[in-house]
Parts: sequence; C-alpha cells; structure tokens
Amino acid sequence: MLIIGGPASNNLENEIADIIGMRSLKVDYKIFPDGESYIRFPEKLEEDIVLIQSLFPPQDKHLIELFLMIDTAYNLGAERVIVVVPYMAYSRQDKRFLEGEAISIESILKIIEKLGTKYFLTVDIHKENSLKILSIPYTNIVPTVLFAEKIQELNLDNIVILSPDAGGIGRVRDVAEKIGCEYDFLEKRRDRISGEVRLRPKNIDVANKNIVIIDDIISTGGTISLAAKQVIKNGARSVYVLCTHALLINNAVKKILSSGVKEIIATNTIPNIYSKISVAPLIASVLNNLFK
Amino acid sequence: MLIIGGPASNNLENEIADIIGMRSLKVDYKIFPDGESYIRFPEKLEEDIVLIQSLFPPQDKHLIELFLMIDTAYNLGAERVIVVVPYMAYSRQDKRFLEGEAISIESILKIIEKLGTKYFLTVDIHKENSLKILSIPYTNIVPTVLFAEKIQELNLDNIVILSPDAGGIGRVRDVAEKIGCEYDFLEKRRDRISGEVRLRPKNIDVANKNIVIIDDIISTGGTISLAAKQVIKNGARSVYVLCTHALLINNAVKKILSSGVKEIIATNTIPNIYSKISVAPLIASVLNNLFK
Repeated sequence: MLIIGGPASNNLENEIADIIGMRSLKVDYKIFPDGESYIRFPEKLEEDIVLIQSLFPPQDKHLIELFLMIDTAYNLGAERVIVVVPYMAYSRQDKRFLEGEAISIESILKIIEKLGTKYFLTVDIHKENSLKILSIPYTNIVPTVLFAEKIQELNLDNIVILSPDAGGIGRVRDVAEKIGCEYDFLEKRRDRISGEVRLRPKNIDVANKNIVIIDDIISTGGTISLAAKQVIKNGARSVYVLCTHALLINNAVKKILSSGVKEIIATNTIPNIYSKISVAPLIASVLNNLFK
Repeated sequence: MLIIGGPASNNLENEIADIIGMRSLKVDYKIFPDGESYIRFPEKLEEDIVLIQSLFPPQDKHLIELFLMIDTAYNLGAERVIVVVPYMAYSRQDKRFLEGEAISIESILKIIEKLGTKYFLTVDIHKENSLKILSIPYTNIVPTVLFAEKIQELNLDNIVILSPDAGGIGRVRDVAEKIGCEYDFLEKRRDRISGEVRLRPKNIDVANKNIVIIDDIISTGGTISLAAKQVIKNGARSVYVLCTHALLINNAVKKILSSGVKEIIATNTIPNIYSKISVAPLIASVLNNLFK
C-alpha cells in the first residue's frame, strides 16, 4: 500500500504513513499559465493506492486534481484506489431546496465512484446521509474523540458544550459524554417586536459556565459570533469555539474573536493557523482496519 | 429539444436556437461566498437537452459546472443529453510526455461520458485523436469555412496562409484551397551560433505578400509574435492572425500587436474583443443533422 498526497493533502499522507508504518509520497503538480492543473505520479504505483486530497477552496481546482489522480492511478496500473477527502466540498448543497437545483454533493460523489474508487473516506461530512448515494463502501469519521481530548487539555471546570443548532446535538452529546459535562443546543428565536434574531440555549443556564461551541463547518462565522455574544450576555465565564472544518472565509476570524471568543480550534482538514487538531490518527485507524 | 446555455456559454445557446428554430434558455447560476458553484435549471426539462458550456478559464470551475449540469439534467428527467463544448480545456495535455503524467484530456472526456452524455460536440480540439477515448459518437468542428469567409472579407491580394508549425498544415491547406491562395508552414530553426530560434516558411517567399497566420489556440502569443516578426523582416506587406481559440493570457495581445500584426481575429468559443467569428452556424448545422 502506498499513501499518496494530492496537491491539497495538507501533509496528511506523511502523518498517516508514519502512524501506519507505510510508504508515502506527494504527487508532482503545478498550474500552467492558462490555469490548467498538471498532475504526475513521480514513482511507479503499487496495487493498492490511498489518495489523500482535501477539497477546501479553490474547491473546483482541487476536485479536478482529484479526478485526474484517480483516473491516472488506474491508468498507471493501480488495482484498488482508496480515496480520502478530509474536507468534502459541496456538502451543503445536499438537497433540492428549489425545483431544478443541482444536488451537487451527489453529482460529485457519483464522479468519484464512477472513476473506479473502491473505498471512500471522509471526515465529518455536513450530512452523513449524502454518502448513501455511493454504492462503494465508505466511512465518515466524526472527530468527537479528538474534540473531547482537546477540551480536557484546556483544563476548564463547569463546562457546557453547545451546538449552534438542533441538528448538531448528536455531535455535542458525544463529546459531552466522553468528558462528563453538560450539553445543549442553541435555539433560534426572532424577537416579535424588533425582528432581531436571538440564539439561546434550549435548556441550560450558561451563567458562570465555561462554554465550548462545537460545529462541523465554520464558514463566514455569522452564527458562531452571534451565539458567542448571547452566551456572554447571559453570564458565561468564557467561550471557546471548536470545529472540524475551519473555512473561515472573508472576515470570519475577526467577527468571531471580536464577539468575545477566547480561542478558535479546528482540525487540519483545512490548512490554517487554527488547525490545531490532526485527524491523521483517526484516518490511519480506518485504513489499518481495511488492510489488516 | 431544448438548448441550454451553461454559465460559460458565451450566448451561443441563443444564436444556435435562432438558427435552428428551437427554444433556448440559460441556467441559473451563482458562486457561493466560499467559492462553490450553484446550478439550477429554471424550467422543466424536455427529453432531449443540448448543454452548451465552453471551458475557458477558470477551466476547473467551468468543468465542475458542466458535470453538475449533465448529472442534474438526467436527475430531472432528461433522456438524452448532448454536450457542446466550444473550447475544450486540457486538450494540450494529450499524451504522457513524462512517465506518470495524467493524460488530462482523456480523464476529462471519460467523466463527460460516464455522466451519461449521448453525443459530444466540440470545436477544433487541439488533437482530434484525443476524442478516440470516447465510446459515444462525437463531432469535432474545424471552422476552416468560417476562416475562408473572413479572409475574403479582408479584401487582400497576394495572400499566403501560414501555419505556425507543421502540425497545422491541414488546417491552412483547407482554408487556402477554399479561397485559392498559397499556403505553407513555418519551420523552427535554431541558429547554430547564436542559439536564437527562427521561424521561416518552409517553401514560400513571403516578400510583398499579405500573410494570414492561422492557429488553433493562441495562449501566450509567443510563437505568433515571433512568426510575425520574421515574415515582416522577410518583406511581408501585412500580417493578420486568425485563430479558433483566443486564450490570450498575460500580455499576449500586446506581444502580438507590437510584433507588427495588423489584426487578431478569433471565433467566439472564448469571449473577448477579438471573437469576431461565430461558430453558431456550424454547431447548429451538426445539431440539425442529429435531429432531423
């Protein structure tokens, strides 16, 4: 087995290979002056190939690179290509909100399968249900164990873990049970008179608590900063933000930190200075099980 | 039959629909703040759909949009999707120049086919041979008839049509035979002493001739400007440049015009101010034959 990092692997191929004790390499890549991508495997390929390519922005370029890598790997003699996508792009276009819309995540997953992928591995996809379009086996890694470890390192007492919406309650419950603390989700309410949107914990009083808000993707940071402001107003002692995928587009960081958040902590599915948790051990463990 | 323009159709859906007398529409599209593309068909689809999407820069974005459109069209009930790609991206990565390289054009064409495309139509692909990877029927339109018409509109005498390389001799022969003039290709020679690269017509004396250089793609304009300089040095009266796909990246236009070229004329497979020839009549004619 050979673990190969694509142009957007964020060095995970080396981290994973070190853990499993396998060989890794990085593809050769460049961008031509007209904007086209170039991909080359610098060594002869083995039978079993693990391709690692995250799909953070520019998503479309990283997708085309991934497609070129899968097809070329088979062309060069690989027999089984396992695809690892730490951050799955297009995962939020997962249903037809309006008639006639593309369900983009399904189209993208179909292409990955049609190119011959034998196993698909991703981390904390926005809706796990989206993966059901695949007929190949897959794993969606939810890094709750890593979140729990990280929170324990923060050495806080009176912790409350909050999900910014009802949909994320499972994620915060998992983490809370691991460290033995309270958890809740934030309820969105629109003030009948002012029209102002308020987020408040459904069941828990946050006064004097250390709050950890956990989400899957932080994009523009709007919800998170609103949530932080409200819990601080309600007497929270501190607010930390944890997420799997820190897209942090536009002025998200400024927005979040100026709302009173002490620290932003994310995994390394997307490279940036907040990527303080590596998902490599979890990916390595899945790969190890596949090949034992 | 419904002719649908993708985000990068350069209005060809309307031009073609007008010629054939069919209905056309444009997809709804936008780009989300994080850079992901959004595609929506604004109307109920018919059984037969023609999708028009050119693949000029940003190529990867336009490719993903095309993939989303093909898959979604079938998802919404289309039975036959015909794909028209006026400018085919990645066509110059058409063989393995080095061991281990992606033959990108083949991987891209494979995806277009695997998504269910029933017929593929493109204009003047860099190497027609690349299309042999397809098992669906296809047409590659070479717009020599449009080039011949355009040259006749220029009202020149003593015309010599030149290809910048031996590979393009078929294209210039076709045009020259249509208008009854001389043609040749430029031979690349490296001066043994200075190492300088020179381009000169293989057989023809260009002195006092009106030169039309024809190429498929003009990218950085390096070859064209070198060729123009040399034929002017050899006494050519004027130099015009015709091409199918005017990518014109970086300072290509300045480079070409400052080398003495009177005019750059291109087709509308790529939108820019030099796109003075429409390929719509040729595409319409192929579609007409398909559906009659």
